[in-house]
Amino acid sequence: MGQDTILSTFGPAYREVAVGKIATLATQAPLLLECGAEIASFPLAYQTYGTLNAEKSNAILVCHGLTGDQYAASDHPVTGKPGWWEMLIGPGKPIDTDRFFVIATNVLGGCMGSFGPKSVDPVTGKPYGLHFPVVTIADMVRAQALLIDALGIHQLFSVLGGSMGGMMALAWATLFPERVFSAVPIASSARHSAQNIALHEIGRQSIMVDPDWHEGRYLEAGTFPVKGLSVARMAAHVTYLSEEALHRKFGRSLQNRDQLSFGFEADFQVESYLRYQGAAFVERFDANSYFYITRAMDYFDLTQGGLAQRFKGTKTRFLVVSFSSDWLFPTSESRTIVRALSAVAANVSFAEITTDKGHDAFLLDEPEFAAIVRGFLRGAADKRGIT
Amino acid sequence: MGQDTILSTFGPAYREVAVGKIATLATQAPLLLECGAEIASFPLAYQTYGTLNAEKSNAILVCHGLTGDQYAASDHPVTGKPGWWEMLIGPGKPIDTDRFFVIATNVLGGCMGSFGPKSVDPVTGKPYGLHFPVVTIADMVRAQALLIDALGIHQLFSVLGGSMGGMMALAWATLFPERVFSAVPIASSARHSAQNIALHEIGRQSIMVDPDWHEGRYLEAGTFPVKGLSVARMAAHVTYLSEEALHRKFGRSLQNRDQLSFGFEADFQVESYLRYQGAAFVERFDANSYFYITRAMDYFDLTQGGLAQRFKGTKTRFLVVSFSSDWLFPTSESRTIVRALSAVAANVSFAEITTDKGHDAFLLDEPEFAAIVRGFLRGAADKRGIT
Repeated sequence: MGQDTILSTFGPAYREVAVGKIATLATQAPLLLECGAEIASFPLAYQTYGTLNAEKSNAILVCHGLTGDQYAASDHPVTGKPGWWEMLIGPGKPIDTDRFFVIATNVLGGCMGSFGPKSVDPVTGKPYGLHFPVVTIADMVRAQALLIDALGIHQLFSVLGGSMGGMMALAWATLFPERVFSAVPIASSARHSAQNIALHEIGRQSIMVDPDWHEGRYLEAGTFPVKGLSVARMAAHVTYLSEEALHRKFGRSLQNRDQLSFGFEADFQVESYLRYQGAAFVERFDANSYFYITRAMDYFDLTQGGLAQRFKGTKTRFLVVSFSSDWLFPTSESRTIVRALSAVAANVSFAEITTDKGHDAFLLDEPEFAAIVRGFLRGAADKRGIT
Repeated sequence: MGQDTILSTFGPAYREVAVGKIATLATQAPLLLECGAEIASFPLAYQTYGTLNAEKSNAILVCHGLTGDQYAASDHPVTGKPGWWEMLIGPGKPIDTDRFFVIATNVLGGCMGSFGPKSVDPVTGKPYGLHFPVVTIADMVRAQALLIDALGIHQLFSVLGGSMGGMMALAWATLFPERVFSAVPIASSARHSAQNIALHEIGRQSIMVDPDWHEGRYLEAGTFPVKGLSVARMAAHVTYLSEEALHRKFGRSLQNRDQLSFGFEADFQVESYLRYQGAAFVERFDANSYFYITRAMDYFDLTQGGLAQRFKGTKTRFLVVSFSSDWLFPTSESRTIVRALSAVAANVSFAEITTDKGHDAFLLDEPEFAAIVRGFLRGAADKRGIT
């Protein structure tokens, strides 16, 4: 259990950055992963916001999406940008740090200080790369549970997350039902769809095309698959938006020119924007982590054996949220979760937010979304007796 | 004007294949392209089906999509597969070759025998590669018009096409209104959307990641960007389908295994399917043509100056078709065309076909679609006096 920071390398320049608080977990007994591997004394990076109350009843765990991290509500040490959920987390905000103690971890398999493919294998003295064990959403959640244990917290007041973070919220509610007073899966799904598996496969394949990837051993080769990871990000980024949002933001506007170039430069603003998104991403993310985290999402499936069965007897209060223009995790996926919860008479609220911002909406300023999260947490906190 | 065939190279093995009929066009005067370049005595590859009547009034031009070609209704010489519109074209079929004379060309910039980046530049003695001029949809159509001239046909009875082929049908109707008795743009748009430009940019970028691309000079280098072009195809292929179709076809079914591998092989059928699509594509398509044809679509925009203006005074009869689950060229794009045509009191019919097959539906067996095309052509042919 530490409050220390460690240095980690980032991007093609191998820049070293301190990545915040690190807990060393599974020091007494190893954690058994779903693939069969055991991991012990591994680091998990996290940040906290607000103060844990004496009863330790006000802890909220927020879970990040595919490329997020523990910097949910504070400046990112690599990019210098605000935290990815600063519009939701803070004093007086919907996830009110005057009332709640907020914990955000970097997932197992991540690249912001948690145990992942960038970590050094003590046996070889080299980064694991693709020799890192394949982890699942359940493994990520079990690692978080060890951190919650270490913080002396028995029950989380709430677990919230969007996209993959929503999968983690669902996994928490099914793996540790007694430890989750409320759960808020947002823009998520109970199982990764065929389309989304396909999109992830395209991202992985585009990294593999890059000769600088070196079968995942780029750190040893002193290279970085800048182009491949950038294309993976560009392809993914389009799926986070909607046709309407792209049209509203860019239309067919040209970039720094009055007329078409009749060439293959970025004539259109939307091309220039995408190239920028790709270039910015490679500065802060690890290509091998992209493999592991996409795979964890692909493997996620709570529907085997019947989704409702998983929730049987649950006392957790649920808020399920979707966004109308999200075609990656469409409302139908959220409705499937709501139906399963209703089938076992669980306490569940559901909201579809009308927006043209696509999947990305869960990271953007959506007043109705913020108001619904605020109202749900306030009501649940009153029930839980959090002052 | 020739009935000869030429040999062309295909895929990583540089296999030579005869690509059918070739016309040599612009032999008297060059064709001025929109980029300002002039091209002369250039080849355009085509196939025909059925017989031209004495009045030369029964000619139908079918225009292919991004990666299609002149083999609309006969076996493909490279893949051996049936033509891409064999369900529509043939004796007794909706595009009835007992009644109509069907012409299908390979577009300018293509790789099935038409003048394109694979062609040899007489100045350097090497393939043009990215020194080929950037062509537009209008350029493609003007090249086709030279072929129609050479065939002695003044007015086409109809121009049909899906996706990019639909753009070509629209371009024909606006560039040569007197030469088009009827036009059928299917699953198409009057301008390429920001989202679709973005998707094309991702395809081009993924080719550029591949070191075997050699800045487009791979033929000289004796290489072929197999991986990059394959990823471009995989990424595009997903956009041709719908979430529903992918779910119906594959769901989360595993490929040749009972349980997850906990690795990065193609565990899921959908991954295996995509990899196959990518691998098959590189055998028949040229990476540089992928650049040129995607760019032509990106540049397409009939809305500048007002779409309705373009159709003012048109006597052409239009049938506009869309597919309900097509998110790449959604029904809203077709409605925009229909509204513009209605605004100038054009003769226009519109049908949205209900299907879960996505954009790909225009190439698949969709009985309602086939029936609508049949009915429209039959009615128009009666009006035109074609027996």
